[in-house]
Amino acid sequence: MTKNATRADPANSDLAQNDAGNAREQLLDAASAIMREGDTVDISLSELSLRSGLNSALVKYYFGNKQGLMLALLDRNMRRILTSVETLLAKDMSPDDKMRRHIRAAISTYFDYPYLNRLLMRLVRDSSPEDAGKIADDYLRPLSEAYNRLIKDGVEQGVFRDIDPQLFYFTVTGAADRFFSARLVLRHCFSQDNLNEGMRDSYADQTVDIIMRGIMV
Amino acid sequence: MTKNATRADPANSDLAQNDAGNAREQLLDAASAIMREGDTVDISLSELSLRSGLNSALVKYYFGNKQGLMLALLDRNMRRILTSVETLLAKDMSPDDKMRRHIRAAISTYFDYPYLNRLLMRLVRDSSPEDAGKIADDYLRPLSEAYNRLIKDGVEQGVFRDIDPQLFYFTVTGAADRFFSARLVLRHCFSQDNLNEGMRDSYADQTVDIIMRGIMV
Repeated sequence: MTKNATRADPANSDLAQNDAGNAREQLLDAASAIMREGDTVDISLSELSLRSGLNSALVKYYFGNKQGLMLALLDRNMRRILTSVETLLAKDMSPDDKMRRHIRAAISTYFDYPYLNRLLMRLVRDSSPEDAGKIADDYLRPLSEAYNRLIKDGVEQGVFRDIDPQLFYFTVTGAADRFFSARLVLRHCFSQDNLNEGMRDSYADQTVDIIMRGIMV
Repeated sequence: MTKNATRADPANSDLAQNDAGNAREQLLDAASAIMREGDTVDISLSELSLRSGLNSALVKYYFGNKQGLMLALLDRNMRRILTSVETLLAKDMSPDDKMRRHIRAAISTYFDYPYLNRLLMRLVRDSSPEDAGKIADDYLRPLSEAYNRLIKDGVEQGVFRDIDPQLFYFTVTGAADRFFSARLVLRHCFSQDNLNEGMRDSYADQTVDIIMRGIMV
């Protein structure tokens, strides 16, 4: 651990600048993997150190504390989502094709980050009202506006019924999230050892189909 | 607190038998209220004592420990759901009307017990494989079988498309749950002070509508 920590410590090497970025990303990767596999957002610094092969003092160095690391992980995950939603909205494609792709992408996201909604809720709950407001401004409001635009386009082009975009947001994300946050329940209760990509795709096929039939004119 | 504890202690009074049941229910009511309002399944014995007006030693008396109290709360909530699903299935009603009522009831359940899925997941995670299996047998398998029957009836009567009941279970419960587990996010992020029954009903109307259009032939 000492060796790794030294290698990654920006003060100790000419290669510092490159490795520094790597160590930061490695800590986030390790936190993500622990949350995904343990079905929890409660992680310990010793687990993180063991998993990443890095000294846990680097958490303090890069993120201040564990809360800072959790915020950085949320930021990394949410920015990826926002970028892909923005890219999708900008495409020259019908609103219903965009929506199909979006629902499929949301299911894929929760397959990759099944802890994401719990991480978001935990950070909102444990933050000051000011910081919770910032989380809303940075991640939730842009998503909310994307739903408004996508539904509005579809209604104007006569393909979607006139539904409430905000309520619809909860329907989609709830349906997308639930399958994978239930991973532990599946494993213990139905002896299904793990969710694989085949199950993800079957779930996506059926869910996209139900929701799209549900909102099309 | 001593006074209340004495009042409720079955060893101390002729009224013991009646009060004993009340104290047990009061503790479960208090745990439910704390989880609902705090948007968490992490409760402390001192909070429970303060909220119920009962001595926290009664938790040990009735439930053994905090885990036992959580299991008893899960049991109370889940039995209520299973009873209402069984009653619904036994009714002389079309499969689509049954499904509409069921989705609406599921949304209402998560309005009343927004912590329920998290409580279930926590208890599955923290239980021995044997106890997790018992949770599955007692609550999840009967629900799963109810979905099988309801979808099968609808397909046979030509009203539902031939969908996978298990995957559909996750779509419905995910969509039903999400709105209310997001209560804290709504409060902090969108300045909506609380979810009220009007919002519950609007969400139920739209969600029932989307899902039913999604599965009808």
